[in-house]
Amino acid sequence: MEKPVLRADARRNRARVLAAAEEAFATDGLAVPLDDIARLAGVGAGTVYRHFPSKEALFKAVVVERLAQYADEARELLDAPDPGTAFYDYFTRVIEQASLNRAICEALGAASAYKADVSTEFRDNLAALLERAQAAGAVRADITGDDLRALIVGALAVERYSPGSHHLVRVLLDGLRTV
Amino acid sequence: MEKPVLRADARRNRARVLAAAEEAFATDGLAVPLDDIARLAGVGAGTVYRHFPSKEALFKAVVVERLAQYADEARELLDAPDPGTAFYDYFTRVIEQASLNRAICEALGAASAYKADVSTEFRDNLAALLERAQAAGAVRADITGDDLRALIVGALAVERYSPGSHHLVRVLLDGLRTV
Repeated sequence: MEKPVLRADARRNRARVLAAAEEAFATDGLAVPLDDIARLAGVGAGTVYRHFPSKEALFKAVVVERLAQYADEARELLDAPDPGTAFYDYFTRVIEQASLNRAICEALGAASAYKADVSTEFRDNLAALLERAQAAGAVRADITGDDLRALIVGALAVERYSPGSHHLVRVLLDGLRTV
Repeated sequence: MEKPVLRADARRNRARVLAAAEEAFATDGLAVPLDDIARLAGVGAGTVYRHFPSKEALFKAVVVERLAQYADEARELLDAPDPGTAFYDYFTRVIEQASLNRAICEALGAASAYKADVSTEFRDNLAALLERAQAAGAVRADITGDDLRALIVGALAVERYSPGSHHLVRVLLDGLRTV
């Protein structure tokens, strides 16, 4: 099915709903009512439902957009001069940013049924960044891109349990260095 | 308030409910209905409620019992000849056992309001085991017992996201070694 072409005002409304939803999900998690999101976006509940038939659809759109941004950031680093530094900086930044966003944490940590939906681009670019750092000898060779996403989920759980414990991310980083 | 003394049959029923509850919580998490637990224990729902006024009370009793067992295991290791090996073996075993038990995972990973309730004995013995391994130079010096519990929560999140990834626990263990 082709994507329907949206009129300019409909596009604007969709973008406002998405931005409001990301803010609301980040603060309150998935429990936030759709009506609150509509109010925050300054549109009626009907406008929200016209673009997103359910809260799940809206949440998924928010996550897909955020993962697309992470994917772009990873791609830009693929020709960075120092593959190890590029990898560790990126890894740390994703954990720090995502830990501020409950929705992203929940999506990344959700059951395996959701895993297949994780943006292919994010998955591929993360794996490419990892492989480049492994080829440079900066990251242990026995982990895969899938493993790395599992470790990100773990790091987010640590951060939620013990907010601001940046030295605990260093434990993970040290564990990732070649042994 | 003094603990009420239970008659022998009441004690037996309480133990049966606790064992059934642990099994049910381990498999299905907190969503399991109390009626199912009563059926599994072979007692009436009234008997369950007599011992545990709410599902939360029952869940807490299960967790407290399991943490008491972990606390005992840690205490027994406090005079092990090799403090580093004792620590890493214990740490790995707790993660492997707890990862099979959704209830324990949820309790350990629950919001900070719950943290104060984590068995003092478990907390103290875990910290003592850690400090002994740090004094022996086997574990990095910049983490505390609180940090260690946060890392256990992280390791459990990794295990739930990617079951059976024991090599990912090794990443964490390597990160914990003195650098």
